[in-house]
Amino acid sequence: MIGRRLVNGVESSAISVDDRGLQYGDGLFETMAAMNGRVRNFERHMERLAEGGRRLGLPVPDPNLIAAECERALVGLGAGSVKLMVTRGPGPRTYRPPAEPAVTRIVVSSAPKPRNDPDDGIVVRLCDTPLGLNPRLAGLKHLNRLEQVLACAEWDDPTIAEGLMSAVDGRIVCATAANVFLVRDGQLVTPDIRDCGVAGVMRGIVLAAAREFAIATQVRDVVPADLAAADEVFLTNAITGVRPVGEILGVRRYAAPGEVARALLERTTRAGV
Amino acid sequence: MIGRRLVNGVESSAISVDDRGLQYGDGLFETMAAMNGRVRNFERHMERLAEGGRRLGLPVPDPNLIAAECERALVGLGAGSVKLMVTRGPGPRTYRPPAEPAVTRIVVSSAPKPRNDPDDGIVVRLCDTPLGLNPRLAGLKHLNRLEQVLACAEWDDPTIAEGLMSAVDGRIVCATAANVFLVRDGQLVTPDIRDCGVAGVMRGIVLAAAREFAIATQVRDVVPADLAAADEVFLTNAITGVRPVGEILGVRRYAAPGEVARALLERTTRAGV
Repeated sequence: MIGRRLVNGVESSAISVDDRGLQYGDGLFETMAAMNGRVRNFERHMERLAEGGRRLGLPVPDPNLIAAECERALVGLGAGSVKLMVTRGPGPRTYRPPAEPAVTRIVVSSAPKPRNDPDDGIVVRLCDTPLGLNPRLAGLKHLNRLEQVLACAEWDDPTIAEGLMSAVDGRIVCATAANVFLVRDGQLVTPDIRDCGVAGVMRGIVLAAAREFAIATQVRDVVPADLAAADEVFLTNAITGVRPVGEILGVRRYAAPGEVARALLERTTRAGV
Repeated sequence: MIGRRLVNGVESSAISVDDRGLQYGDGLFETMAAMNGRVRNFERHMERLAEGGRRLGLPVPDPNLIAAECERALVGLGAGSVKLMVTRGPGPRTYRPPAEPAVTRIVVSSAPKPRNDPDDGIVVRLCDTPLGLNPRLAGLKHLNRLEQVLACAEWDDPTIAEGLMSAVDGRIVCATAANVFLVRDGQLVTPDIRDCGVAGVMRGIVLAAAREFAIATQVRDVVPADLAAADEVFLTNAITGVRPVGEILGVRRYAAPGEVARALLERTTRAGV
């Protein structure tokens, strides 16, 4: 069972070449973990989607409809992941959004991927491809992802699990498909994403869990020197959860998993998030 | 006759939801004017496409194949425009580009749109949506166009023909779907696009024509004060050619078409570019 594709609720792999999702990347997406035939952290994903819709002026579908379609896509699969794309639909050839867009919703389920992270943490690298700054798009999980594509094209060594990306001004912002956290003197730090980066669902869960644990958290600018000074580094995303980093190539090695990552790993796993 | 759609040479309006053009905006496009069943300035468009392919690591199709498909798409239409999209094709769900992508080429022809620019120049406005800076993507006509979509969503007054966009640092860079030129004391100025903006085909033609006319040209940073100080302003793109600006709302009016725009209009029309 390799997963299903639903386009506007119909089993199909096709969308129109006139779809603004293709023409302009005019849309949003969510990549969601699934277990027992249901999406995990569904409400958080829908909150972010709604926020993206508000900021792009894109009317997003009813979460109940999305939930039902995700469950349909997971029949026979159970666990794995679901990628949802919501685009501004087909339209005439102009950047201007139609006044009443016929929004396209696309649901694609996939079987779980084998996890083979080393016990002592993943190896990550620093990418050269920078992230442009634009407060209008920052935080959104929109379909304009060429920066991430170019960053991932920088390496093909399978022992390197991820790449950290910097903004054009040199700040460390995120990994290509994950948020990044640092621990220094027991304090948890993650980069501010006011002008680039994605407001990851797992990032939000980790920040909330840290507050529950009374771990001091800071959302602030992170510079390369912060990586070298950190006691722990870990990445987060909705599919892979918390991933301790054992080494940042050219920066340093870390004793992984560190204490904070371990606590968060346990917490996010126990709570089924 | 409303135009034809060819996907990889086959009459079709459908592409796969797995196409990286949709998933990530991982592709390039060209919007080209057509006359007498052929694309105008085809070589210039193909040069830009090839440069984009080099910079994105995307193998672009043979120009002869593209030319033949454009001509097929124009049968029964003759004049109008052709939009070509070249994407990195379908792939598994990862930002990392496949080693050997099955590139998708999409050719869509359209009938000519009626031109109703006022004789004394178009009215343009200043957009609030900024352009992010990223030298890796600057100049390319790639499929990540959310900034332009948001800029065009800022107004719906049909008497406003275009909107000028600024970079996040305040420099004036381009219009939503055109390059911008200023004339000051007989000198032609257009913004540098080293870190954002598109290297328009008509921009290149106008710069070349100006050199032929021995009009001094400067490619440099343009700030809002330059707009107020300009004797003429005009926009360029491959479909609409040279469009004199009669007013920038909130900045000033211009006597349009100015002398330089008039000379370039005649030159670019006579040469059939």
